[in-house]
Amino acid sequence: MKTMTLQEIIAARRVVTQYLKPTPLVHYPELSERLGFQAYIKHENHHPTGSFKVRGGINFMYHLPQAQREKGVLTATRGNHGQSIAYAAAQFGVKATVVVPHGNNPEKNSAMRAYGAELIEHGADFDEALALCETLQAERGLYYVHPCMEPALFHGVGTYSLEIFESLPDVDAIIVPIGGGSGSCGAITVSKAINPDVKVIGVQAENAPAIYRSWKTGGHVETDSCDTIADGIATRTPFPLPLSIIKKGIHDIVLLSEAELEDGIRLALRWTHNLAEGAGASPIAAAHKLTETLAGKRVVMVMSGANLDTETLKRILGYQL
Amino acid sequence: MKTMTLQEIIAARRVVTQYLKPTPLVHYPELSERLGFQAYIKHENHHPTGSFKVRGGINFMYHLPQAQREKGVLTATRGNHGQSIAYAAAQFGVKATVVVPHGNNPEKNSAMRAYGAELIEHGADFDEALALCETLQAERGLYYVHPCMEPALFHGVGTYSLEIFESLPDVDAIIVPIGGGSGSCGAITVSKAINPDVKVIGVQAENAPAIYRSWKTGGHVETDSCDTIADGIATRTPFPLPLSIIKKGIHDIVLLSEAELEDGIRLALRWTHNLAEGAGASPIAAAHKLTETLAGKRVVMVMSGANLDTETLKRILGYQL
Repeated sequence: MKTMTLQEIIAARRVVTQYLKPTPLVHYPELSERLGFQAYIKHENHHPTGSFKVRGGINFMYHLPQAQREKGVLTATRGNHGQSIAYAAAQFGVKATVVVPHGNNPEKNSAMRAYGAELIEHGADFDEALALCETLQAERGLYYVHPCMEPALFHGVGTYSLEIFESLPDVDAIIVPIGGGSGSCGAITVSKAINPDVKVIGVQAENAPAIYRSWKTGGHVETDSCDTIADGIATRTPFPLPLSIIKKGIHDIVLLSEAELEDGIRLALRWTHNLAEGAGASPIAAAHKLTETLAGKRVVMVMSGANLDTETLKRILGYQL
Repeated sequence: MKTMTLQEIIAARRVVTQYLKPTPLVHYPELSERLGFQAYIKHENHHPTGSFKVRGGINFMYHLPQAQREKGVLTATRGNHGQSIAYAAAQFGVKATVVVPHGNNPEKNSAMRAYGAELIEHGADFDEALALCETLQAERGLYYVHPCMEPALFHGVGTYSLEIFESLPDVDAIIVPIGGGSGSCGAITVSKAINPDVKVIGVQAENAPAIYRSWKTGGHVETDSCDTIADGIATRTPFPLPLSIIKKGIHDIVLLSEAELEDGIRLALRWTHNLAEGAGASPIAAAHKLTETLAGKRVVMVMSGANLDTETLKRILGYQL
């Protein structure tokens, strides 16, 4: 992938709408009163897999040549990307093999198995799981779907930003979690083409600030760890293209502590009655730090995913809301 | 309202789709494995107000004559019906007055106020709140929207059952919570017209079994109390028309204990990653009692609402899942 354009996202939308319903953009009056701006949630948590990633999975699988569909696909994941690929593979009758690190969330593992994927546990973390894909790709003749470098995934994911502008043409700002970068790159690409005045604001975790630091320093910063409750934004290594799009187009990036991320999950339950995972709730948490700059504006917060495991939810609700 | 027909529901759909997106019908493979049938959830919890009732509110407000729109409307509620009326009133620029009993859930009260409704607290329970409506209606010249006797509410609500058949034409059974009866009457009416072999199965609480007992005995049974965590199905008095439709068309009614209703909320979080209120989760809880009769079938469970308050959620999650 060398670039990302509105045209590619529009093309992806023709595919995605054949398989997925547009997600709701809901205005929340109470949350708006509290935040001092018009608060809208883009409910990407309402997809069948519980996260926005499935838009990319569908678009990718649609464009995969039939000969390769018959051989199958391969990827590595901590969760939402793998569920997206497993789900999309099932829709197209493709066999999916998914590598997860040892100790991966058992609820996410069982969800991928239920979609029919073969699960392989390998390595101590995501990077080690990813490394196995190189080997298996050659051995088994599988197509290796790289979670952060496959253009069709980015184009598919970009379709939610198109829906935002169609539902709310006069949006002023979009707050979006940044993990691999597909969501934020979609928001930047669509905003730039439709209304460059729209401010795209990213959210990262203090414990996983690789893209934040790369953006701040202008360099390419990797981190040694990414230990955050928000596994959807737990990335240590920025990839070149998304990083270059983010550097050019992001208005600001908010860093959140673990306590603030947990607060976000509680706020999402209280003010929207939706279960959001850490990344999915992060824009609501970040919004509380932006009330001055966003006062009176129309602000969309992307609730990117719902896949929070029950044990973590129980622990978080032990605190007072 | 003397009857309820598919034609009326189809007419309501032309209205409802102008204001609300169809809700997703999602197949859950893991839940299917556990239950031994193909498990689908109709996500009525994904509406802007967090419950199916808003379909009725929109349809009602659309048909209200302009002269009456200018005078305003009045109703009594414990929560979801009032939010529906307040939301729909705001869409049409109508002033809504909503009577709630003293001690009503403060989260539901603040949600209705945020939609612009005037809230009046009156009486010790829902029946006493409802009684005040008779007085206010005359005094203020407001249209009194009776929660269980207004045809336009029933026709609007019926549209979700139409969507079920369009998404899953070969559905075998629909499990639906029974409160006032609009949801179940819609499912019965649409099923009877499209495929009479479809089994519509209702759910009530052991602590609020008025319709269950009326159905079992063939009579008209009221109860002295309806003290259940599932306030969406906490009704003491069956109304004649819904009761007659239910008596003729319901295949079975499952009664759930409070413990089983709380289990439902935990199961919904674990297996669908959605926050459901007691009534909204009741079909998932009921399904566990129906695994033998439904084995291998395609079963839709209606997740009617999301509006569970945070304190109750915290208490429920204190138990093991």
